[in-house]
Amino acid sequence: MQTLRVELGERAYPIHIGEGLLSDAGLLAPHLEQPRVAVVTNTTVAPLYLQQLSTALRAQGVAVISIVLEDGERYKDWATLNRIYDALLEQRCDRKTTLIALGGGVIGDLAGFAAATYMRGIPFIQVPTTLLAQVDSSIGGKTGINHPLGKNMIGAFYQPRVVLADTAVLKTLPPRELSAGLAEVIKHGLIRDEAFVVWLEQNVDSLLACDAPALAHAVRRCCEIKAAVVAEDERGTGVRALLNFGHTFGHAIESGLGYGNWLHGEAVAAGMAMAGDLSSRMGLIAQSDAQRVVALLKRAGLPVAQPGIAPARLLELMAVDKKTEGGRLRFILLDRIGAASLRDQVPAELLQQALGAPAG
Amino acid sequence: MQTLRVELGERAYPIHIGEGLLSDAGLLAPHLEQPRVAVVTNTTVAPLYLQQLSTALRAQGVAVISIVLEDGERYKDWATLNRIYDALLEQRCDRKTTLIALGGGVIGDLAGFAAATYMRGIPFIQVPTTLLAQVDSSIGGKTGINHPLGKNMIGAFYQPRVVLADTAVLKTLPPRELSAGLAEVIKHGLIRDEAFVVWLEQNVDSLLACDAPALAHAVRRCCEIKAAVVAEDERGTGVRALLNFGHTFGHAIESGLGYGNWLHGEAVAAGMAMAGDLSSRMGLIAQSDAQRVVALLKRAGLPVAQPGIAPARLLELMAVDKKTEGGRLRFILLDRIGAASLRDQVPAELLQQALGAPAG
Repeated sequence: MQTLRVELGERAYPIHIGEGLLSDAGLLAPHLEQPRVAVVTNTTVAPLYLQQLSTALRAQGVAVISIVLEDGERYKDWATLNRIYDALLEQRCDRKTTLIALGGGVIGDLAGFAAATYMRGIPFIQVPTTLLAQVDSSIGGKTGINHPLGKNMIGAFYQPRVVLADTAVLKTLPPRELSAGLAEVIKHGLIRDEAFVVWLEQNVDSLLACDAPALAHAVRRCCEIKAAVVAEDERGTGVRALLNFGHTFGHAIESGLGYGNWLHGEAVAAGMAMAGDLSSRMGLIAQSDAQRVVALLKRAGLPVAQPGIAPARLLELMAVDKKTEGGRLRFILLDRIGAASLRDQVPAELLQQALGAPAG
Repeated sequence: MQTLRVELGERAYPIHIGEGLLSDAGLLAPHLEQPRVAVVTNTTVAPLYLQQLSTALRAQGVAVISIVLEDGERYKDWATLNRIYDALLEQRCDRKTTLIALGGGVIGDLAGFAAATYMRGIPFIQVPTTLLAQVDSSIGGKTGINHPLGKNMIGAFYQPRVVLADTAVLKTLPPRELSAGLAEVIKHGLIRDEAFVVWLEQNVDSLLACDAPALAHAVRRCCEIKAAVVAEDERGTGVRALLNFGHTFGHAIESGLGYGNWLHGEAVAAGMAMAGDLSSRMGLIAQSDAQRVVALLKRAGLPVAQPGIAPARLLELMAVDKKTEGGRLRFILLDRIGAASLRDQVPAELLQQALGAPAG
């Protein structure tokens, strides 16, 4: 097991990474205010891992209730959030009950927002079960739900007490989900660490084959990068914005297709290809670097072009995204492989080309 | 004008109190991140004060949109909250738009929770227009909505950037609302300041007559008490709990009657009479002190007994309240006039008597 720490002063917390941690409730018990937890999970994860986690917790004398939701991004809405509130109230959970998210990014976002807002905030723990959640969404405290007019529009910053990333669970991940997680892994390299990009180019096949040491290395390196970025800028007003590389395009794609048709990581992959293309059109990186981004994404089994949405519609969807400021669109673009920056001066004709171009 | 400060480190903020401040947008402008605000108000307050505030803001070069909601506690729900989100998204308000709550406690709670959760948090300002909001709910950062299973069950701690309490607006307050506000004024005295209770006993008629200096003194003293309590204990784990004097009973009354039948302050007044009665039954205060509480509440035009709800039902409603912990009911009881403490060892038979007794 390896342990990192997200340095956020009084809100600091550890991330434990390793094989089989799900059975090690001793890692969670010190973080509970009372021996009572509510595990929020979904119909896919529950049959695989709910019993393993619950048994481990009960062995520590912890009372466990479970809240099993439908699986999918389209359930990241108010109605599903309300099911969590209803269950907590019906079970008379009080302010010292800890909410545990056992699942991927959707479960983490939903359960985290429920924890942030139930009785104005109760303790929260993340047990991410997808690669995407382990390397990205479980760390940093972003929680929330979608609104019909935009993704993640309603939410809160709310930090967990501890994150438990059990790499053994990744073996049951469908290949498409594994690839979607690799999109965020690749993102961490592209914005912050060229050496990690080189390592990924050498090891992408091992990762796709669920090679344990390779997965452990990738999860750890991403957690290190994300923890450092979040510690520097919890609220996303500065360097944290770079973690949204590919996301301005990606969110517009998800929204344009209807949430849940593409996985989040797939939309981000196409978004990163588009952002790489735009970076190259603006002369920030060589065309060969943009092609290198595309090649790595393709090898990871990811889409590298948007699915044929009209550029004007994508522009409209981007305009409502949180990353606008004072009405001006902002983009995270590559300065080189391993470094990115936030730009708000993007010529309209280059943007049009990047939106329309088949990047593959 | 008088200015107090709520000392909360990086979240510290001023409270300005005085006559006619609504026209003094110069007090708000320094707190805006961009010259753009969304004013959330209701159909009762809008015709009285929305134009006055908007005109003052526009004179400072601030773009103003307004969101006018239905008036009443029964609208403190998800559907109304969603109307705020919809309006903000439709108007493409971004993270630097400031939300201003112009209204009473319901508007402050709704708008505050919208500000806490729209795009994971946008700047927020309180302009309370009821006595209750000026002396209590606008200060301290409690925001939220009701759930069918309990009042204020969904919410967040979210501090405003500034609070503007214009005592001139209290002149248009219906007498019943003025009395309801006095319940919280009396509460501040009972839990913390006997001299202020004596002052209230001498000045309650002036307050009911909207005497300007009397109102200004009462608002200021309550803000001082509340600001000091909140600065000491932002999250309500310690001394802040005392501000809930009368509220365990009061919330159960509101919930039992259906939100909105009694005003919050009315339910709290009956709750304080019951808590005083229970304090006396437990031998913490003399019976004459409990009668003194009842007498002051009566003079302020407030109810001093619960409206005939079965004691067993009240107990059930209290059990789901946030103030239970580990399943045990906790009460704030008087140690004397001007001092209170949290107690969780209340004999069941005394509680039964207090729940059933006509306290008047």
